[in-house]
Amino acid sequence: MRNLKITLSYDGTNYGGWQRQINAMTVQEMVEKALKAITGESIAIHGSGRTDSGVHALGQVMHFKTESSIPTERFALALNSKLPEDIRALRAQEMPEAFHSRFSAKSKAYFYQIDRDTVASPFYRRYAWHLSKPLDLTAMDKAKDVFLGEHDYAAFMATGSCVQHTIRTIHRLELTEHEQLLRIHIEGNGFLYNMVRIMVGTLVEIGHGKIKAENLPKIINSKNRKLAGATAPAKGLFLKEVYY
Amino acid sequence: MRNLKITLSYDGTNYGGWQRQINAMTVQEMVEKALKAITGESIAIHGSGRTDSGVHALGQVMHFKTESSIPTERFALALNSKLPEDIRALRAQEMPEAFHSRFSAKSKAYFYQIDRDTVASPFYRRYAWHLSKPLDLTAMDKAKDVFLGEHDYAAFMATGSCVQHTIRTIHRLELTEHEQLLRIHIEGNGFLYNMVRIMVGTLVEIGHGKIKAENLPKIINSKNRKLAGATAPAKGLFLKEVYY
Repeated sequence: MRNLKITLSYDGTNYGGWQRQINAMTVQEMVEKALKAITGESIAIHGSGRTDSGVHALGQVMHFKTESSIPTERFALALNSKLPEDIRALRAQEMPEAFHSRFSAKSKAYFYQIDRDTVASPFYRRYAWHLSKPLDLTAMDKAKDVFLGEHDYAAFMATGSCVQHTIRTIHRLELTEHEQLLRIHIEGNGFLYNMVRIMVGTLVEIGHGKIKAENLPKIINSKNRKLAGATAPAKGLFLKEVYY
Repeated sequence: MRNLKITLSYDGTNYGGWQRQINAMTVQEMVEKALKAITGESIAIHGSGRTDSGVHALGQVMHFKTESSIPTERFALALNSKLPEDIRALRAQEMPEAFHSRFSAKSKAYFYQIDRDTVASPFYRRYAWHLSKPLDLTAMDKAKDVFLGEHDYAAFMATGSCVQHTIRTIHRLELTEHEQLLRIHIEGNGFLYNMVRIMVGTLVEIGHGKIKAENLPKIINSKNRKLAGATAPAKGLFLKEVYY
């Protein structure tokens, strides 16, 4: 019985997110169907974490156990022959039995895309949040470092979420510009539900002058979701890489 | 009566090309419908040229005459309120009566995108030709300059096309790399039907060693479509700009 780790890239536009559910097609369901088609086995896959409906992945990681005789180096190719074009297996790797895509993960890297053109580009309509109102990048850049390090991120978690510990560590937060696109890169040891999108929404409100950069430490310390910014739309978010 | 020039960007994936036709939704049809909705007039628009089904535009240009009272500087915004998200008016400009988007055009710039990753990216599946077999960029780079200047491009025109003159001038042909993407930039004073896609297809066959770079002058001189490479898929092609 092999324990296989597979790295996936997907366009989340047409799916109800990662996790299997009744009323929507999901990435997990498509991958499990493709695995059944190539191995004949009913395999339950485990992702490094859920992605919401509309969120994309360049490097989502999953693992599963299989008795299949398909060689590891041909597994991604075989899977792609049964997957839709908007989900691709990038590579497969045989792992020790104890490897778990979620529990073994050390950290995760995301980026978020903002289309700053006056008119929203047809080519980013599914892959960026369009904001034609200018952003004060200096204010955003000044504010972003407040997020670095270990903090209680309770104010940056979707209301109604149920977790015991809300302390997380952010290792990297950077803004990069690529013509009309602004990318916000966020890496950390773990993320609460909607945390990246609320951090982005808060940085955008700082960029629009609705929240003052100097108030960000107070917002974090308040642990009050209402004081942070709105949740940025799902379509701008990309899970870039999971580190082990 | 104003003569308006409007620059458009569109994702060609869901359209049967630019030109109005019976059996498919086209970009022209969508724009004319939106114009009718905002002006009440039945306006016939003129594009700088047709784009085929699946071909994209970052800067297609059209013109039309209108009696509408919508100010020129608000025309793009008004049009966008009635256009689908995959077609956007970027800007409007009032032109002298004699301006014609097609006949006044001096040259056009296109680029073509090739996704060279081992596995086709879900994010480029509509916007690039996926070629996992490595391309010999040195051979392509050496060959490309043969296209520069004035040539009879009869060998690079879709069979069955009907034009009197097949002589065209290419001003620029360049290859640029952007991570996994290879972009082929082509600018010229005019293009025959499918000419850019056949040029790209020929360069790719040179990159794959199927056509020898040193045979390119002979292929051009032959004026024989059969000697040039296959037509590259529509989805990788972008009309970037029209110069006047």
